[in-house]
Amino acid sequence: MFFASDNWAGAHPDIARSLVEAAGGFASAYGTSDLDKRVENTFCEIFERDVAVFFVGTGTAANSLALASVNRPGGQVFCHREAHVNVDECNAPEFFAAGAKLVPIDGPAGKLQPDALAAAIGRFPPDFVHGGQPMAVSITQATEAGTSYTVEEIAALSAVAKEASLPLHMDGARFANALVHLGATPAEMTWKSGVDLLSFGGTKNGCWCAEALVLFDPGKADQMRFLRKRSAQLFSKSRFISAQFDAYFRDGLWLDLARHSNAMAARLAAGFAASGKARLAWPTGSNELFAIIDNDAMKALKEKGAVFYPWPAGPQVKARMAENETLVRLVTSFATSEADVDAFLTGL
Amino acid sequence: MFFASDNWAGAHPDIARSLVEAAGGFASAYGTSDLDKRVENTFCEIFERDVAVFFVGTGTAANSLALASVNRPGGQVFCHREAHVNVDECNAPEFFAAGAKLVPIDGPAGKLQPDALAAAIGRFPPDFVHGGQPMAVSITQATEAGTSYTVEEIAALSAVAKEASLPLHMDGARFANALVHLGATPAEMTWKSGVDLLSFGGTKNGCWCAEALVLFDPGKADQMRFLRKRSAQLFSKSRFISAQFDAYFRDGLWLDLARHSNAMAARLAAGFAASGKARLAWPTGSNELFAIIDNDAMKALKEKGAVFYPWPAGPQVKARMAENETLVRLVTSFATSEADVDAFLTGL
Amino acid sequence: MFFASDNWAGAHPDIARSLVEAAGGFASAYGTSDLDKRVENTFCEIFERDVAVFFVGTGTAANSLALASVNRPGGQVFCHREAHVNVDECNAPEFFAAGAKLVPIDGPAGKLQPDALAAAIGRFPPDFVHGGQPMAVSITQATEAGTSYTVEEIAALSAVAKEASLPLHMDGARFANALVHLGATPAEMTWKSGVDLLSFGGTKNGCWCAEALVLFDPGKADQMRFLRKRSAQLFSKSRFISAQFDAYFRDGLWLDLARHSNAMAARLAAGFAASGKARLAWPTGSNELFAIIDNDAMKALKEKGAVFYPWPAGPQVKARMAENETLVRLVTSFATSEADVDAFLTGL
Amino acid sequence: MFFASDNWAGAHPDIARSLVEAAGGFASAYGTSDLDKRVENTFCEIFERDVAVFFVGTGTAANSLALASVNRPGGQVFCHREAHVNVDECNAPEFFAAGAKLVPIDGPAGKLQPDALAAAIGRFPPDFVHGGQPMAVSITQATEAGTSYTVEEIAALSAVAKEASLPLHMDGARFANALVHLGATPAEMTWKSGVDLLSFGGTKNGCWCAEALVLFDPGKADQMRFLRKRSAQLFSKSRFISAQFDAYFRDGLWLDLARHSNAMAARLAAGFAASGKARLAWPTGSNELFAIIDNDAMKALKEKGAVFYPWPAGPQVKARMAENETLVRLVTSFATSEADVDAFLTGL
Repeated sequence: MFFASDNWAGAHPDIARSLVEAAGGFASAYGTSDLDKRVENTFCEIFERDVAVFFVGTGTAANSLALASVNRPGGQVFCHREAHVNVDECNAPEFFAAGAKLVPIDGPAGKLQPDALAAAIGRFPPDFVHGGQPMAVSITQATEAGTSYTVEEIAALSAVAKEASLPLHMDGARFANALVHLGATPAEMTWKSGVDLLSFGGTKNGCWCAEALVLFDPGKADQMRFLRKRSAQLFSKSRFISAQFDAYFRDGLWLDLARHSNAMAARLAAGFAASGKARLAWPTGSNELFAIIDNDAMKALKEKGAVFYPWPAGPQVKARMAENETLVRLVTSFATSEADVDAFLTGL
Repeated sequence: MFFASDNWAGAHPDIARSLVEAAGGFASAYGTSDLDKRVENTFCEIFERDVAVFFVGTGTAANSLALASVNRPGGQVFCHREAHVNVDECNAPEFFAAGAKLVPIDGPAGKLQPDALAAAIGRFPPDFVHGGQPMAVSITQATEAGTSYTVEEIAALSAVAKEASLPLHMDGARFANALVHLGATPAEMTWKSGVDLLSFGGTKNGCWCAEALVLFDPGKADQMRFLRKRSAQLFSKSRFISAQFDAYFRDGLWLDLARHSNAMAARLAAGFAASGKARLAWPTGSNELFAIIDNDAMKALKEKGAVFYPWPAGPQVKARMAENETLVRLVTSFATSEADVDAFLTGL
Repeated sequence: MFFASDNWAGAHPDIARSLVEAAGGFASAYGTSDLDKRVENTFCEIFERDVAVFFVGTGTAANSLALASVNRPGGQVFCHREAHVNVDECNAPEFFAAGAKLVPIDGPAGKLQPDALAAAIGRFPPDFVHGGQPMAVSITQATEAGTSYTVEEIAALSAVAKEASLPLHMDGARFANALVHLGATPAEMTWKSGVDLLSFGGTKNGCWCAEALVLFDPGKADQMRFLRKRSAQLFSKSRFISAQFDAYFRDGLWLDLARHSNAMAARLAAGFAASGKARLAWPTGSNELFAIIDNDAMKALKEKGAVFYPWPAGPQVKARMAENETLVRLVTSFATSEADVDAFLTGL
Repeated sequence: MFFASDNWAGAHPDIARSLVEAAGGFASAYGTSDLDKRVENTFCEIFERDVAVFFVGTGTAANSLALASVNRPGGQVFCHREAHVNVDECNAPEFFAAGAKLVPIDGPAGKLQPDALAAAIGRFPPDFVHGGQPMAVSITQATEAGTSYTVEEIAALSAVAKEASLPLHMDGARFANALVHLGATPAEMTWKSGVDLLSFGGTKNGCWCAEALVLFDPGKADQMRFLRKRSAQLFSKSRFISAQFDAYFRDGLWLDLARHSNAMAARLAAGFAASGKARLAWPTGSNELFAIIDNDAMKALKEKGAVFYPWPAGPQVKARMAENETLVRLVTSFATSEADVDAFLTGL
């Protein structure tokens, strides 16, 4: 009953096996091997266009490099207050982008709203040097609240960004979970909706360590290889990443895994509704869910070995909570079984 | 016949298998799992003392974080002119250490000399703020020239560093190769000789991606976890690194692999001496060797499929080369077979 | 009728003359001249203890270097949302401190509240590496809202900072104005209340360009001279700054100038109360005041040549404003005359 | 007899007076006053074209911002080994340019040679990410050896830079001294010879603190105002710099001052030749000269109160020195009198 995070799971067997298969033989290093190139082509196919792909080791690296690549002195990055780049990366984006500032914006259920975004950008008039200058908008898909932006919502935010000539970055640590939730294509959820830079995550969805920075305008990728190397993210035996992605993409494994973990989250949600002991804080749209749970039920679950974290509740959620209730986060993964979910619900 | 680099090899089968075995089950993330801790203990055993260990993804990350951890404003790092930190890391050390400068020092066969080091440090008197201030000495073991410092040579450099109150960093990308060449213990080759910070490399010696930063004074490790996270080098599924190291250290595999690749280099060297077509530029002390080779022989070898790189020759080597000769670098690895070596020598 | 900012004034005649007097002769450079040392001693006398003083060229430099000197990886600086370091320095603090983050905290009338500060710090538990770590508290005295913290208020914030082992920085761009408003001594308003680092501003109070970073623990000043030089803030003819401070401090000129500009602000405030066309948004405590003014009166004043800026009103002030009113900021200086003030009030 | 440095002099009386005259009245801040704009126009006239001008406080700031403005990740700046940016700025260029590396190149009498420059650049092939990438060439005029590049020499270096698509930066801390030595126009010595970025120094030639960064392509100045502000180099009372430059340029004062200090250096040189106790290490081309001097004569001079510094001699100079001789540097300034020079020569 491990619902603490999707990174508590290991790797999917197919992906682990792929590393065994790729282990033999010699191949040129630093991302130039045949396998690296083949997987880069797969990215182009998946996104239905030429893209520039840079493998990196962590989602933080992908996010920070994305922002560093559009860096400006005194640069302001507009993001949700709870965005991973803002609260969970130990200032890596600020460090990689030479002191950029993340401008936190509030929004319901983890989502930026176009009006609030426009207002935040508007506070940086071009002729006021003291405050710095806008440099990017960053959104997370699926969001830190477990919701997913619709394609239309992404396009609306993109319109605001484009109006201010700002690139739009998507932190896709749970890209696949949002994708299958929406039933959209990768192209629709990204460049067709105005996304310029994507942190494409594989780790949380069954890889060991496979993240990619995707630039939808390969013409802007010129400096990225230097940025990546300077950030110590160019792996010598790069095929250890491409071998993971190779298995990840084969026969749609990545979508199957995401569908499974989303289904497990939905099963949990359905069980909550039936239990009377817990209810969703807001509707979920991925493999993450936030529930208001009775404290006694929570205690009982923990005693039975369930692992999950309490979560700080904002004022609106707090207003709907009773005194003996707690907001908790539950995350499912490719490795979550129906038995796990049912044991949890029984415990509840 | 792949002698281009030891990072053209994949991973040793035991290490690949270890990743399969570790792939199942749930474990806490970000370096807190039981396996992570067990491998950290193994490091302590290997070095015969309490050490602080930080897993990272690349040797460049380990080097850059080591230097960043002893950073000072206007800091000067003293290293060999050909040091990897100086010429092969795209300014990552300078970037991680907020603009530190690497002071290149010449020395024969890739080795810093104590006198030259003392002279270089002496050019930064404490009361002259304009030039900056010394912050560290960095050496590579085995060196970029394929040689290895003896334990006594390390101690002599350490004495110069300590005289100037400077920490001594060792870039151990080929740590195991130097170790088995010297027949020393890990403790003797590091902290017993005055090394304070070690970049411990596993990747070139049979891992996929397994590097560790080792601090011999764990009391100074307090800020490193933040430095690592800020540099996007904290892996969520950290056990994918510890699982590699677990197999790497088991039953002395790491030493066996290093002995094998050193032996393959020695076999090449012996063949060169016998051939009359090539000779060592200087004695080797690891799995890397630099040879002066007849251009016709080189061409013939390339046609037969041998992969290796020409190397820029310094003035002293150049003086010993004939016009129709080239300096080349050959690197062996755990995956180099006797058959490969013999095919190469036959080709010669 | 220039009330746009205190930096629209030039320099006080005594200070300009001091530069003429110091212009002749030869003196050692980079802060080592007799005059530099004499003025450093004056700082020690003023603060009634040994202090380390570093002359710099701008308040932004003093603030950014203060924060850089206590920098930690992933460091969080706690400050008021409207703090100059947060909204008016184009990310200089973030840049100088290698990607530190400023955590904005709301508070009435420009002042941090101890409870809110403690709560903000509390969100960074020491064992949670992802969020980074607290590194400093920064307050502005006088504040950006024209108010001044009392000595007791400073001590209360300092107690919260010390509880978290954090240094307390004071941005004293309008230090003298706050000082004479409180009737406190420099020592009482700083180190006796727990301030560790002070940006001491002279420019806004009658100097051309004279700012100093004051460290109340000279034992921690070791790296500052390198930080200052690395930031291009070590002036070769440093006596051009010390000559300004020399005149500034002579016979209490600095306090007289501050008393004058505060008095001009008070005269404005009194006139507002009498006019019925404008009223203070909150009580002033320095040479800056914020007034709610009738739009027609504002227009008339502008037509008569009065120069001042509208200011964004927060929700609480907005609630007290009529539709035809605007929040404006007025700043007086040593060069503001009674005639200017009276002309303004007449215009009103 | 002060020959330690030209920054031991104070300010020329006309420049000090200009600050008194500008001290009164109100003017808009941060470089937007009428005087600021008028002086910017003077720069355009002097350089016979539209230029973008940014006042800053130190030469280090001008140099570091110039390089930061053309920054690339992993960037390599090619400069003379003795360049001020390389040895006298405490890593400020590296810090401002986020870890750029200065590649030191040897050259006789302080001058870069085109061949050596081309060779140094050639070591960074575009497809080799590990070593980083070229980003700028920086030369000093007059050089740190007191010599001046001819216009043709500058053009030859520029041709090499342009061939590699690199901008050419000139550190003009002693711009005026080189200019009057060559008898060239400012345009000829800069953009007509291919200089793209100029650090224009006024401080060493009679100002208190007046430096300017000049961009010859104003279309590339867009980000500089943010870079300057982020570096804490935007002065609120900016007219204190423009008032200095205003007097500096009036009636050719700047050229007169440079001619005077050069003449004083020439008078010293002539006296050396006549004395038999000292001789130039190489011909001088500005207000700095380097002489080989008899140790007994040096001692006698110091006892008579002459202030000057010994200088480290390179191997070629050392070969020409006797055992009882020392290399010394002497710098004259606008404030050096014939009487000072003659007293020195008599002492010799």
